[in-house]
Amino acid sequence: MTDTAASSAEPAPLRLGIAGLGTVGAGVLKILRDQSDLIAARAGRPVTVSAVSARSRERDRGVDISAFAWEDDPVALATRDDIDVFVELMGGTDGPAKAGTEAAIAAGKDVVTANKAMLAHHGQALAEAAEARGHVIRFEAAVAGGIPVIKTLTEGLSANRVERVMGVMNGTCNYILTRMQSSGLPYETVFDEADKLGYLEADPELDVGGIDAGHKLALLSSIAFGCQVDFDGVALEGIGSVTIDDIRQAADMGFRIKLLGVAQLTGRGLEQRMQPCLVPAASPLGQLEGGTNMVVIEGDAVGQIVLRGAGAGEGPTASAVLADVIDIARGIRVSTFGQPAASLRAVRPAQSAVPAPYYLRMALVDRPGALAKVAAALGDAGVSIDRMRQYGHEDTTAPVLIVTHRTTRSAIDAAVEGMSATGVVAGQPVVLRIEQV
Amino acid sequence: MTDTAASSAEPAPLRLGIAGLGTVGAGVLKILRDQSDLIAARAGRPVTVSAVSARSRERDRGVDISAFAWEDDPVALATRDDIDVFVELMGGTDGPAKAGTEAAIAAGKDVVTANKAMLAHHGQALAEAAEARGHVIRFEAAVAGGIPVIKTLTEGLSANRVERVMGVMNGTCNYILTRMQSSGLPYETVFDEADKLGYLEADPELDVGGIDAGHKLALLSSIAFGCQVDFDGVALEGIGSVTIDDIRQAADMGFRIKLLGVAQLTGRGLEQRMQPCLVPAASPLGQLEGGTNMVVIEGDAVGQIVLRGAGAGEGPTASAVLADVIDIARGIRVSTFGQPAASLRAVRPAQSAVPAPYYLRMALVDRPGALAKVAAALGDAGVSIDRMRQYGHEDTTAPVLIVTHRTTRSAIDAAVEGMSATGVVAGQPVVLRIEQV
Repeated sequence: MTDTAASSAEPAPLRLGIAGLGTVGAGVLKILRDQSDLIAARAGRPVTVSAVSARSRERDRGVDISAFAWEDDPVALATRDDIDVFVELMGGTDGPAKAGTEAAIAAGKDVVTANKAMLAHHGQALAEAAEARGHVIRFEAAVAGGIPVIKTLTEGLSANRVERVMGVMNGTCNYILTRMQSSGLPYETVFDEADKLGYLEADPELDVGGIDAGHKLALLSSIAFGCQVDFDGVALEGIGSVTIDDIRQAADMGFRIKLLGVAQLTGRGLEQRMQPCLVPAASPLGQLEGGTNMVVIEGDAVGQIVLRGAGAGEGPTASAVLADVIDIARGIRVSTFGQPAASLRAVRPAQSAVPAPYYLRMALVDRPGALAKVAAALGDAGVSIDRMRQYGHEDTTAPVLIVTHRTTRSAIDAAVEGMSATGVVAGQPVVLRIEQV
Repeated sequence: MTDTAASSAEPAPLRLGIAGLGTVGAGVLKILRDQSDLIAARAGRPVTVSAVSARSRERDRGVDISAFAWEDDPVALATRDDIDVFVELMGGTDGPAKAGTEAAIAAGKDVVTANKAMLAHHGQALAEAAEARGHVIRFEAAVAGGIPVIKTLTEGLSANRVERVMGVMNGTCNYILTRMQSSGLPYETVFDEADKLGYLEADPELDVGGIDAGHKLALLSSIAFGCQVDFDGVALEGIGSVTIDDIRQAADMGFRIKLLGVAQLTGRGLEQRMQPCLVPAASPLGQLEGGTNMVVIEGDAVGQIVLRGAGAGEGPTASAVLADVIDIARGIRVSTFGQPAASLRAVRPAQSAVPAPYYLRMALVDRPGALAKVAAALGDAGVSIDRMRQYGHEDTTAPVLIVTHRTTRSAIDAAVEGMSATGVVAGQPVVLRIEQV
């Protein structure tokens, strides 16, 4: 490219309207301020900001916003004539985020968003509306922060029939679980620590209840399997019931406990689980410490691909938002979910279709023949035992750990019911799936 | 999309001409045969094969090629009117691969290739020629097999100034090194094992000499730092000099030895190294076993992203080739090296600009004051010691291990020269960089 050519045909800038100037929005503005030449070289055209919108115009964000037009109302921002892309960084399932996105689509804008909750609930309708008008919605920042997992699934592995997608996608939960493991402290204490460190959402149930990670899993499932987003089909279980005993016992047997999302399309439907699981300690998922995220994709041609990186934070999330923006500037216009939204199938939710080994922990009553009764209950349900350990008695009960061979969740449930009926098991056994990775 | 709309405006297929029907070429044909509906749904149009070319038309490849036109000459294939994309899977730095690629570009075709050697040597000229005609050359399969690392760097992390790229990108070398570690067998024995298993190239120096991995590193550097491919600027060192002693000693101190590629742009120029390094055993790179590949990318916004997957083989490589093809079918037309080839800078090669700790192993002569002389030689060169171990004497010498604090390679070289001058070190000390990951 000569200087003459460049000056005679200066490409038009891509003009953004950014709604939401929290951590991520401020991060986006800082990168655009500091890396404008680099981005223009890669995008083939400048990327500029025309206007912004946020709750407060005055708040100090570490970045000067005086050069941008201001809108109090994100809907007004979304429909401005001087923006090409509406960048939605407000968050929230409905409210201004959804209203602004809908207005932007109706006004013929492309949309970039980091909003997993909105897309997990309204992604199908929003994508259909955008695609009917020839526009795109991009959401790399909504899943696993800075890790380009949407692009990897949609484009990098587009020749694969995906067999399984797994992910540790909530850094706060992984922090809590690995901190429990390393410190030996119970859940409640580590939860309070995480709260003091500011790691938890205003509603902590979004984190520790698995909801945030469940939103992400539902989005990944849609892309991986070509089906409509079905957040309601995700079997959700948080980490609040994971005890330090289970973490210790799992470690003794060579496992780690992770809040793991798993999605698989089976003959019975789409199985989506977000729940505490055991994974081998020596696997990449087992070795994942602290707040880092990991996504594992298994394709029929490529085998297993593992992606690891920061799942949150100003820089990583802004990196993902701007990757989507630069894609649009470059003319990359892949459908929101990797194929036209109108062609995505509505798939039946399924659970427990995929067998796995299970980890069971129970308190066995001190009585002759007690262990035999537990073993018989398992056998009656068709569950065979891989490993069993009984420890010394604590008062009137003894802890018993069992790792089963591969079986179904319904067989495990039947076995647990059988055990309870024997009267030799005190309380409810702990049941955790061992995901084979 | 309704059925009516689909049938009234059936999109034109993207038509391929495939040159080279070895493992990868056959893999591409099998996926196109088995997954045509999936690919059409994602690409928005069918992907078809018009013609093929290979050394032998008769060879059984496990896939029927009778429906495709045949060309003996890849150049004739590349210029056929009924192909849109020339898929070059023959390999080789020059010869038919380069002739076919040049002919395809001149004939106005896009090119997809898995050929790292050709691009490491001729990538700049080929990309300029293609881009001058508005065409693209894509090469996801050339680096790290099935891992979508080119796409991740070029698109997924496009908002980042890249700070460092690292990779274990030759599965054979990583197999040999991890097998030495696990078996305790010497290099020569494990090399012979790998040869019998068919893991080695016809010219094994391409693998164990680091050349193949060096080609890949040079391509990654270009994309990461916006500079022209400079394979000659890669400091290459193979794994042939890695001894089982070093592997053992490194492991004792919490390290693993990997053939690690590292690229960094410094004030002094572009530093590209492909050499055996120590990395922490607990890091993702340290934990990488067997033939798997790993690429680590560090960006100013995103932090550290780790990608892991199969670096070779029919399925993974064909997956990468077809991801490029599907991108072209979708209208994704990113410049070969992430920005126009004509805008890539020619960067001065630099070495040793980036300081690091080093591992030294030497045989110390049994003489009073010997260790003091070694320590003095290090001190004189400005190298400070982090850890030192002396072992019991073997005959007349004693093994000494030293881990230094961060220093430059030139200081280490001066220290080694100083040690040799003392006369208390038998033979040449082993010097390995400890890459901080």
